[in-house]
Amino acid sequence: MQLTRFSDISLRLLLYLACRDAASPTVTARATADIFAVPYTHMVKVVHLLGQHRIILTTKGKGGGLRLGRPASEIRVGDILRITEPNKAVIDCFTQPCPLRFDCLLKYALDDALEAFYQHLDKFTLSDLAKMSALKTLVQLSA
Amino acid sequence: MQLTRFSDISLRLLLYLACRDAASPTVTARATADIFAVPYTHMVKVVHLLGQHRIILTTKGKGGGLRLGRPASEIRVGDILRITEPNKAVIDCFTQPCPLRFDCLLKYALDDALEAFYQHLDKFTLSDLAKMSALKTLVQLSA
Repeated sequence: MQLTRFSDISLRLLLYLACRDAASPTVTARATADIFAVPYTHMVKVVHLLGQHRIILTTKGKGGGLRLGRPASEIRVGDILRITEPNKAVIDCFTQPCPLRFDCLLKYALDDALEAFYQHLDKFTLSDLAKMSALKTLVQLSA
Repeated sequence: MQLTRFSDISLRLLLYLACRDAASPTVTARATADIFAVPYTHMVKVVHLLGQHRIILTTKGKGGGLRLGRPASEIRVGDILRITEPNKAVIDCFTQPCPLRFDCLLKYALDDALEAFYQHLDKFTLSDLAKMSALKTLVQLSA
């Protein structure tokens, strides 16, 4: 069971933004794509979705770029993944229809287990996880 | 975030075996592949791994087939997924190397969240989840 690449990029981007000084100049989507060596088009999609949910604020024009939409201490990791993970269930009962799909106790157990996964991550904010020396170094090197 | 198709097939197969009467004749891998409309080759791989872990017992020859390796009430769902899920982490830090991979607080949080997922599923045994009317009907129809 793995997070999507989309969530992976989202988390890396948000941790990077969380580690930056609020007074720093904004950073562009292209720059963050380069920093994490991910395709620019993927980063743009991530920025778009997180922008829709006001996790990120984007400004255009000279000096424009990306910032967190609210303090890193108020953005919970579980809530990020509830936005970025496309599938709300960990098992697909319908594409290859399962004969148990309308009466399945397993599905309820899996749904609740996924919520336990998210709730564990709700204990952490971006601020908690951004306290990594490697991340601070990365921010300094890319300043 | 989704379970692999391998885990999906494993759970369906095990629930089916859990619902069968212990006195029933054994069922073959080919028959269970047909019942759940999954490729026979996939079912064989599932049976092989679950057999290695003694979750399933396989007997060869006439009258041979598949049975649970111990009572359904002793097989916890979390333990099944610990066997069938190939990735022990929900995020891949190495294939496309992440600059934070050697000092990452996020990875610890995700690992613990995955364990919370499994621990929730440890509350359920196959016996608990096999109590579905659709499953009983499926077993009766395929007898």
